[in-house]
Amino acid sequence: MKIAILGYGVVGSGAYEILKKSGYDVKRVLDIRPHKELGDSLTANYDDILNDNEIGVVAEAIGGLEPAHTFVVKALKAGKHVVSSNKHLICEYYDELHALAKENGVTVNFTSAVGGGIPWLYNLNRTTNGDTINKIMGIMNGTTNFILDAMITDGRDFSEVLAEAQALGYAEANPSADIDGLDVARKTAISSSIAFKTTVAEKDVDIFSLRNITKNDIDYIKDKFGKTVRYMGFGIKNDDSTISTFVEPVILPTTSLEANVNKNFNIITLFGESVGRLSFYGQGAGKYPTGHALASDVIDVVNGERHTHVYGKVYDVNNANCERKYYIRANFLPSEYASYEQIGSSYYIITNKMKVSEIHLLAKSILESDPLAFFAGFEE
Amino acid sequence: MKIAILGYGVVGSGAYEILKKSGYDVKRVLDIRPHKELGDSLTANYDDILNDNEIGVVAEAIGGLEPAHTFVVKALKAGKHVVSSNKHLICEYYDELHALAKENGVTVNFTSAVGGGIPWLYNLNRTTNGDTINKIMGIMNGTTNFILDAMITDGRDFSEVLAEAQALGYAEANPSADIDGLDVARKTAISSSIAFKTTVAEKDVDIFSLRNITKNDIDYIKDKFGKTVRYMGFGIKNDDSTISTFVEPVILPTTSLEANVNKNFNIITLFGESVGRLSFYGQGAGKYPTGHALASDVIDVVNGERHTHVYGKVYDVNNANCERKYYIRANFLPSEYASYEQIGSSYYIITNKMKVSEIHLLAKSILESDPLAFFAGFEE
Repeated sequence: MKIAILGYGVVGSGAYEILKKSGYDVKRVLDIRPHKELGDSLTANYDDILNDNEIGVVAEAIGGLEPAHTFVVKALKAGKHVVSSNKHLICEYYDELHALAKENGVTVNFTSAVGGGIPWLYNLNRTTNGDTINKIMGIMNGTTNFILDAMITDGRDFSEVLAEAQALGYAEANPSADIDGLDVARKTAISSSIAFKTTVAEKDVDIFSLRNITKNDIDYIKDKFGKTVRYMGFGIKNDDSTISTFVEPVILPTTSLEANVNKNFNIITLFGESVGRLSFYGQGAGKYPTGHALASDVIDVVNGERHTHVYGKVYDVNNANCERKYYIRANFLPSEYASYEQIGSSYYIITNKMKVSEIHLLAKSILESDPLAFFAGFEE
Repeated sequence: MKIAILGYGVVGSGAYEILKKSGYDVKRVLDIRPHKELGDSLTANYDDILNDNEIGVVAEAIGGLEPAHTFVVKALKAGKHVVSSNKHLICEYYDELHALAKENGVTVNFTSAVGGGIPWLYNLNRTTNGDTINKIMGIMNGTTNFILDAMITDGRDFSEVLAEAQALGYAEANPSADIDGLDVARKTAISSSIAFKTTVAEKDVDIFSLRNITKNDIDYIKDKFGKTVRYMGFGIKNDDSTISTFVEPVILPTTSLEANVNKNFNIITLFGESVGRLSFYGQGAGKYPTGHALASDVIDVVNGERHTHVYGKVYDVNNANCERKYYIRANFLPSEYASYEQIGSSYYIITNKMKVSEIHLLAKSILESDPLAFFAGFEE
């Protein structure tokens, strides 16, 4: 079976090199830019791939919704297997792509869309074959972990570390998707969809931004509780009919695995009824790590493996069914709190256990008065 | 395809329950003890399984070499896929079982033989499809990690914690295979065989026992270096023709992932040229975790997946090609050292970088004079 890669950017070119080196036949690469090293295999015309019956698997690494969506739909309808590293696409069209794959007797896989080089989604899906998953959680964004780790280790400011991360290429010029949580929300939605055999949309995930964290927050959490902070996504099965999904800064013991995940590494965890806790750690981004994950999905297809995702189970995705304690730092005392301490003009507040939906509502109103307020959940 | 399980002990019964609950057809269970809950599926006669053409996969969970070896060989020759949780068997007959599987067009898989519920071997093998592995390492034994964690956390003695682990069922009545390293050596040999596409024998792995570690060692390593200790196996590709394999107590930064693996959990890591570091964390033993790993291999086979292990690459397995610094605590000053400190009647010694083969030779001679001497390698 021959292979086509769509998009010769960071991930696409990484996967290309890995597949070639391992002896797999990448017949075509779609890109509109010139790439001499690709010779005749380069094309800017997708029909060259779509109409080529030798090509059995299409690896999409373009990113974004269009033209990736149109290309992938056409590939599935043409009976070609699809592999993708595109979390935005997978999150937006989860049901459509799976239905099309089923209709056309092919598979759609996207291990590289979450966790970079970590075979997280692959293993999460494999685990569901013989086990029931009750919870997933993880550090799924390398940029924000790099920022937090540098703030905690070196006592530096958020804005200073963000600028360094941008200079190193770890953070985008517009860093909002990373630091405001959309990237982790999409990864959490996709992971929860596989874990709970359902479809979770991006909009179902409540998000706290990391943007407002200060050295004072980190110091207070360390001095008061002996704990530290990470930025994580959560998917929790509350009972047989409801699940909760959210992205939050999280207060953790310094001896937890997560607290010892440094630099831009990721760790993602499942809790299964039989297997217990399983965690997967590695590079959450990068040309060769993510390229390897994309290439591995391609290699599975070429080797005749046909992994599918079970979905269609109906849940109420509702953060009113999950309760946690929260830390709030704001310049006034809000209506809900269990205890607080005032230092200078800042109130450092600990709440009682609150519904996740309630704290996210409360946060919206607090942020209207104090746009620099910061919120973090306690993970026991 | 129907399933047979050989051995209805801890792991076999765990896998049985998981497979039944997930709707898979376990037609036969071989055990010589009565088990009412198994009804007609129980048999004490292996021919009932061997001669049943409906049974396409045999899951061996008997443990030990015989009769497991005879049964597994017969299954492969009868064209049945084999799945096993038996590290002793796999380590001893790696080449024979793989050759028989190839000859008979079936697969032999053994994810549950290393790391309990952790899909380590499965992912290690999958990673080799598109990447080159340069090193594997891991905490692969829950008993010794439980002992170390309790000694470090609570300042207790080795013998006291060992007795508790035995009472809790974490350690065997005869704990030698765990605390003297044979268990980890076998797991290291099997992991290295898959990682480097070769065959590493148990005898190729140099071993330091954990048995002699004292509170004083732990305190000295903490006070002097700010570090801590774990018990780990290593497989290292030194160059294109040599690999090194050893099991040692290891001195690590307290902020490493390994140092934060507590209780009886395991973590196992690969270093790939493309994917970088990937670590896998979970329960290293137990009825349901290990049962889940065994059941998952069975489910793969039933779902039509045919994973094989590439082997046959020839390496010189030789610890003369790998160098590390070592910590020695003995009641006299040996011939090789870089620096030392005498406290009471004990010498606390740091060596220069030494060949792994040399330190293991030196240790043998030191232990003849001081049978309570302790050795640990530095992992940077």
